[in-house]
Amino acid sequence: MAAEIVNPRTASSGDSSGGDGAGGSTSQERAGEPLDSFDPVFALHRGGKMAVQATVPIRDKDDLSLAYTPGVAKVCTAIAENPELVDDYTWKSSVVAVVTDGTAVLGLGDIGPEASLPVMEGKAILFKQFGGVDAVPLALACTGVDEIVETVVRLAPSFGGVNLEDISAPRCFEIERRLQERLDIPVFHDDQHGTAVVTLAALRNAAKFTGRELGDLRAVISGAGAAGVAIAKFLLGAGLGDVAVTDRKGVVSSDRDDLTDVKRELASITNKAGISGSLESALSGADVFIGVSGGTVPEPAVASMAEGAFVFAMANPNPEVHPDIAHKYAAVVATGRSDFPNQINNVLAFPGIFAGALQVRASRITEGMKIAAADALAAVVGDDLAADYVIPSPFDERVAPAVTAAVAAAARAEGVARR
Amino acid sequence: MAAEIVNPRTASSGDSSGGDGAGGSTSQERAGEPLDSFDPVFALHRGGKMAVQATVPIRDKDDLSLAYTPGVAKVCTAIAENPELVDDYTWKSSVVAVVTDGTAVLGLGDIGPEASLPVMEGKAILFKQFGGVDAVPLALACTGVDEIVETVVRLAPSFGGVNLEDISAPRCFEIERRLQERLDIPVFHDDQHGTAVVTLAALRNAAKFTGRELGDLRAVISGAGAAGVAIAKFLLGAGLGDVAVTDRKGVVSSDRDDLTDVKRELASITNKAGISGSLESALSGADVFIGVSGGTVPEPAVASMAEGAFVFAMANPNPEVHPDIAHKYAAVVATGRSDFPNQINNVLAFPGIFAGALQVRASRITEGMKIAAADALAAVVGDDLAADYVIPSPFDERVAPAVTAAVAAAARAEGVARR
Repeated sequence: MAAEIVNPRTASSGDSSGGDGAGGSTSQERAGEPLDSFDPVFALHRGGKMAVQATVPIRDKDDLSLAYTPGVAKVCTAIAENPELVDDYTWKSSVVAVVTDGTAVLGLGDIGPEASLPVMEGKAILFKQFGGVDAVPLALACTGVDEIVETVVRLAPSFGGVNLEDISAPRCFEIERRLQERLDIPVFHDDQHGTAVVTLAALRNAAKFTGRELGDLRAVISGAGAAGVAIAKFLLGAGLGDVAVTDRKGVVSSDRDDLTDVKRELASITNKAGISGSLESALSGADVFIGVSGGTVPEPAVASMAEGAFVFAMANPNPEVHPDIAHKYAAVVATGRSDFPNQINNVLAFPGIFAGALQVRASRITEGMKIAAADALAAVVGDDLAADYVIPSPFDERVAPAVTAAVAAAARAEGVARR
Repeated sequence: MAAEIVNPRTASSGDSSGGDGAGGSTSQERAGEPLDSFDPVFALHRGGKMAVQATVPIRDKDDLSLAYTPGVAKVCTAIAENPELVDDYTWKSSVVAVVTDGTAVLGLGDIGPEASLPVMEGKAILFKQFGGVDAVPLALACTGVDEIVETVVRLAPSFGGVNLEDISAPRCFEIERRLQERLDIPVFHDDQHGTAVVTLAALRNAAKFTGRELGDLRAVISGAGAAGVAIAKFLLGAGLGDVAVTDRKGVVSSDRDDLTDVKRELASITNKAGISGSLESALSGADVFIGVSGGTVPEPAVASMAEGAFVFAMANPNPEVHPDIAHKYAAVVATGRSDFPNQINNVLAFPGIFAGALQVRASRITEGMKIAAADALAAVVGDDLAADYVIPSPFDERVAPAVTAAVAAAARAEGVARR
């Protein structure tokens, strides 16, 4: 191996939640100096981060004749006669496809399928580590909605669920909707719903900590991509009083004539307060800021928020509001970073959500299942609730079992469980 | 779990090599009695036979920040700038897609994607066990040539190779050819080429044992499906004197007017002896019988073969000629079964072939690589060569390393290696 490799810099801004993002590609900023081969990141990723393992022994020809031919023919025949048995006698019901087209990867944007693979592998091992769910990274060499939908439909016999990942808005919405219509296994765009679930959990606990009701709160979401749109809808469904969503041109409101279909629908269900104009103007008097866009919110705008506000500045690696600034004005501060308290991290949700759905062979993931996940996540904090502890750590071992159990129970309650 | 399950019988005949097969579905023979839940086959397959595992630790937030965000962004950016790095920093170059449409599964025929999954999982764990190659079973919900080709092309960024499996003839030929044209990773239909490689290895050793040259031998292949066609072409390329291939209507010969395109081409390159008529007539005076069709060859036809003949009756579970009968007339007898000597088993070839190809990042698997695999496999037998030992056991630990090394060296010699 003597490939000439350059030292790429970590993207300096962006949208960690896979939205349409305010940051662009950083390719023009990259220097050409030789890669430091002792960089611990590259050392760790060398050879990939995952493998397949057999869970049955193949020690001799007797093992082989049970696990493979001729014995396996019995199992095939049984499934051919009763297709539901595929869930019992293969790994289908424990394996999730992590599907991307590489168009909205971290804050890096449209870097293509190959370059997205390290993230998809990372996602796959988080599924395993935190949820006991097997996952396979599938980065597709196509970006058309029809192509992605058809490809995933064709792959569906081999998987118990589909986690869509880092697909840019607005295609991600239609892809998810069409797949959910056509498949009888859970299809879940984590950048949307995983983020929304963890945000709701943090918001519930922030409200509890400050003695307020969700219905009394007005929120502003910066970012109208996958995460922003999903969070807005999900929080409203959970009882949030009002929310305005902003994109690069300001508040997504019905008086604008430049809205996509998705944003027009968003405008019709959000912004009861009838705000127009900039993010800064929307923040004046707002109770909650939720940042999923990258970019920076000026300090005076933070200062203009209501007394006891919550600032969830979730862009990675640079929060829209630095926690040191946010703490000057806000009662509760959360970020997307692991080195500050209250990390809003999707890994708190997606492993347990899929584990719960797969456990009961749910045909889909309903709003009720997602709300149950958020409530279970919030409940893990329990009596330890504090300003710097509204959301548990990803390494809190109570998290995944709590989310799994809540999601499985909700699936049964909502009639989408198959066992 | 209270699903009502029936007791399926193992298919009683068929083509273990994925050819078009003489046996049909056995569904009409199946009884409806309750399944014996203590059946060791079903017990072994419960929950599937494989899992995903992380190969890097995720113990704390420092690990998480290296393996996932923010650290992973560096690796993504490096690959975006230099796409070849995907082979170094993801599992792409060690993982093979095992792709089927479920149309020619074992001897069971067209049982669909779900019912084929136990076989594909079995294949995947054999890849791991014998070649150290990660493999992912992908059973597709489509059977059109265009659909399968497009789907696999879209999946290719995530995989280092594609093993096509149990796709019925003649579609399998076109699917493989088109994928090989469009992709720069190995695409290998194991039912064709894996079978052909192991057959050649056994044939070389049988010839050596009896002091004959391949060029002096005339063979008859029963079965003009995927395996039969591939074996015929491959053995001719390796120097076999002559071969006639038979389908249900007899010898595939140019005087027939009912041939498909594939069989017409086959007729033009085989059957120098100009035989027409039945399998039985073709066997008269033949030196080699190769059965990949199921069905039964009458004893008088075996008796009519040349002195010192080789009988490779590879149908599973019922060889076309029972070894007890074959031994009355033949110098060397092989089958597809593990409970007789000389098992012609694809697992002797495909793990090492892919391991060798992936090791050097071969862009394709050439005829030379396949011949090198067969020769390496034959050489493992070495001085222990005997009538009942012309091919090693799948559990001979020398096999996969020998095949891997030979294939990697051949890939370099043929200029298809990328490192």
